[in-house]
Amino acid sequence: MQPLQIQNSLTRKKEVFKALNSPHVGMYVCGPTVYSNVHLGNVRTFLSFDIIYRYLKFIGYKVRYVRNITDVGHLVGDTDEGEDKIGKMARLQKLEPMEIVHKYTNDFHDVMRVFNILTPSIEPTATGHIIEQIASIEKIIDNGYGYEVNGNVYFSVRTFSEDYSYGELSGRKIDELMSNSRALDGQSEKRDPLDFALWKKADETHLMRWPSPWGVGFPGWHLECSVMSTKYLGDRFDIHGGGMDLKFPHHECEIAQNVAANKTENPVGYWIHGNMLTVNGRKMSKSEGNGFTPEELITGNHQLLKRGYSPMTVRFFMMMGHYASTLDFSNDALIAAEKGLSKLTNAVEALGKLEGSSELNKDVDVAELSQKCYDAMNDDFNTPMLIAILFEGVKWINSATDGRISLSKDQISALKSLYSDFVNDVLGLSSEASENSMTGAEGNEDISTNLLDLLVELRSDAKANKDYAGADRIRNTLSNMGISIKDGKDGSSWSHE
Amino acid sequence: MQPLQIQNSLTRKKEVFKALNSPHVGMYVCGPTVYSNVHLGNVRTFLSFDIIYRYLKFIGYKVRYVRNITDVGHLVGDTDEGEDKIGKMARLQKLEPMEIVHKYTNDFHDVMRVFNILTPSIEPTATGHIIEQIASIEKIIDNGYGYEVNGNVYFSVRTFSEDYSYGELSGRKIDELMSNSRALDGQSEKRDPLDFALWKKADETHLMRWPSPWGVGFPGWHLECSVMSTKYLGDRFDIHGGGMDLKFPHHECEIAQNVAANKTENPVGYWIHGNMLTVNGRKMSKSEGNGFTPEELITGNHQLLKRGYSPMTVRFFMMMGHYASTLDFSNDALIAAEKGLSKLTNAVEALGKLEGSSELNKDVDVAELSQKCYDAMNDDFNTPMLIAILFEGVKWINSATDGRISLSKDQISALKSLYSDFVNDVLGLSSEASENSMTGAEGNEDISTNLLDLLVELRSDAKANKDYAGADRIRNTLSNMGISIKDGKDGSSWSHE
Repeated sequence: MQPLQIQNSLTRKKEVFKALNSPHVGMYVCGPTVYSNVHLGNVRTFLSFDIIYRYLKFIGYKVRYVRNITDVGHLVGDTDEGEDKIGKMARLQKLEPMEIVHKYTNDFHDVMRVFNILTPSIEPTATGHIIEQIASIEKIIDNGYGYEVNGNVYFSVRTFSEDYSYGELSGRKIDELMSNSRALDGQSEKRDPLDFALWKKADETHLMRWPSPWGVGFPGWHLECSVMSTKYLGDRFDIHGGGMDLKFPHHECEIAQNVAANKTENPVGYWIHGNMLTVNGRKMSKSEGNGFTPEELITGNHQLLKRGYSPMTVRFFMMMGHYASTLDFSNDALIAAEKGLSKLTNAVEALGKLEGSSELNKDVDVAELSQKCYDAMNDDFNTPMLIAILFEGVKWINSATDGRISLSKDQISALKSLYSDFVNDVLGLSSEASENSMTGAEGNEDISTNLLDLLVELRSDAKANKDYAGADRIRNTLSNMGISIKDGKDGSSWSHE
Repeated sequence: MQPLQIQNSLTRKKEVFKALNSPHVGMYVCGPTVYSNVHLGNVRTFLSFDIIYRYLKFIGYKVRYVRNITDVGHLVGDTDEGEDKIGKMARLQKLEPMEIVHKYTNDFHDVMRVFNILTPSIEPTATGHIIEQIASIEKIIDNGYGYEVNGNVYFSVRTFSEDYSYGELSGRKIDELMSNSRALDGQSEKRDPLDFALWKKADETHLMRWPSPWGVGFPGWHLECSVMSTKYLGDRFDIHGGGMDLKFPHHECEIAQNVAANKTENPVGYWIHGNMLTVNGRKMSKSEGNGFTPEELITGNHQLLKRGYSPMTVRFFMMMGHYASTLDFSNDALIAAEKGLSKLTNAVEALGKLEGSSELNKDVDVAELSQKCYDAMNDDFNTPMLIAILFEGVKWINSATDGRISLSKDQISALKSLYSDFVNDVLGLSSEASENSMTGAEGNEDISTNLLDLLVELRSDAKANKDYAGADRIRNTLSNMGISIKDGKDGSSWSHE
């Protein structure tokens, strides 16, 4: 079997994965800033890392997965100036900032649940780690890489870059960065334009603020991730992920802060960046009017959508692209995904009903298929390749269902465990209705199943009694509901179209 | 209409509710300590305050509802000594404390969602407010009511009681408390046995600890609620709730802390305490083996349960008792609740199908019924009385459905809005399947409904064709699934038994 290889954004190479403290793996992913409803680009990012988390666990690692909630310090424009995103929304909605935080954290959790994205091990918040952030700033200042001016504290990129490399992750050279950045206008307190805020002074009008050795204020945006990742995963840990747009300056600053505070070089083993979503070839954005929400995508309630698509269709669609490639949303692509998913789940359902023979089918090599599934995922979590391989097996299953080939009991049992492993556990494709055993949704599914079985029997009886009108009526009503009846040699059965 | 009256635990009187800053209402409820799965007693408490939250909003108040998550400082035995509950569980499960916190916070949220308990406005955590707790301790010390010994800080109950009253909420007299408490053994650092910890020193082995002016440690359990309630609701706010078992010492200490830190007397306008659950007449507890979990109650997977009960049955059952009375769990009581809920929801469903006449039925006074619903809720949120009144209206609906009386269009429309208001909005009884518009569960419900309608038609056809065996087969299969077919003068219909 191929060993697991990961495309490391830091080295720009595909590298064999070696955990620092195997079988334990520490993974940190930058979570949402909870000032508005989560957008689909975020969903794609968290889905990509959900697959990575699932696969690492699947192959036996004990993963501590930390994904934070940014609830303070992220300023409008992602720079050091301007209003706090959450503070601004609190002002606009006339709510306390923590009401904004709670409202959009709930929205985020709801969306993650709908798409069957697993919850991480720890979900720390920036406001929950102010003391740790202050302690980290003190270390950075003590080590000579931070300076205070009028109650603000900045990170000195120039001083840092004299001792350590800066710009490695984003592939930028410090001299070019320096010469490309706008000269300071004389008003700025910063010594250099590349310097960034570790602590910001807050005046009386600022809603979220805390006392610190430098006066009342709040932490800089980049700092929280440095502090929370190392608090829960150690000064050095295995994997750090996030969206491509966070690579610079956010992740570059994180590395600098970690090194400056803890003097540990290479604080992160593997950096992984997810790519963005486009819509009909153009970047998805609210201002372009092509930035629909997860809910609009599911309900179909948006001008660019012909109709709604189920959460598992969207999940499957997103996995049909590799996490590091851009992915283009279009109605055609979603419809194709819906068909593909339906083909896959119908095959898995049919597999459950197959009865095997005692004879091995020598043209069918399930072990090889399984091997190829692992190899696909071991090749930098290549989900589109995995899906293509799973469809090779679907051909066997469909041929066996139609009676064109036969499979042995052992082959069927091996296929069942393969599809259960890779479709349910790794790809996380759940049956749409089996969300939570406590909600009663499964109960409904059972009721539907029982009712459909009864209707199929009644239709067979009608046909046997030559009541063809009655039989057609059942078939047509079900067809209108998206359920098709198939007549086979062993009787009739129903399936979702 | 009667004004809203609340039984105030502080004054032991039923008092007319007057908001400090109407139409705004600030309400704080002590949330769970997230070190294990939430137990049913907690569910009852949060359900009681869910009703209060819903009703206050329903009658027009703008409620800021704060319910905390205790993720540090709550010690085993609820005293000042012993291991931190979360730290202990982290040690036992070999997890980081914040993994324990995340795991059981998720469980708590899942259970709240299943029972249709609304999320509060803000859900602050103790670890997210260490700085505020330290600031509060400093104020208490400055005001003369706290003292430090060896890195621990205690609240001086005796000093406080010389200036303010202590024991008012729990009805205890300070002298009796003093004489009843065990004498200090000489080893204790406390000046008086009634003193309680505001800050505890933590040694190296303690997992959760923060720097403070008194050294490294963690806050006392009672402090977080004082700090978080006043941070988000102000030094004085309207309602504070929690389970009866928290009245002393937790809530008594909260009052003392608030007064000592802010010098505001009567920091809380109305104290409300929910009562406990018993099982077959005995206190529910894990050690007695009668403490089943919410999930066991729903699945029926516990020796004391004959079968499972749906979340809405449990919700309805709990509302059949007044929040301030004990409530006894038994299979018979749950079965009775299930029948009652089914009767109520069937009537609401039938109401939707009623066609009114042009003539007013003078024996039916919907306005008076509505008045009585408000009066019941205004009488200290008396849900059992509300339910009894709703059943008065059910009689009218059933009589109208059977054709024994007729109602005017206006009367039907008034009844519809009354039942929608009080059954859905106030009592929060949702249709079991309509959990989340995004999960597709509603779609399943639609499928079942369509299939059932089709089966009822097929059965009618079979009867018309004198195929009685076929008709009975449909009826019997549905009956096995808990669905009954009723034949009426306008045709047949189905309902859940």
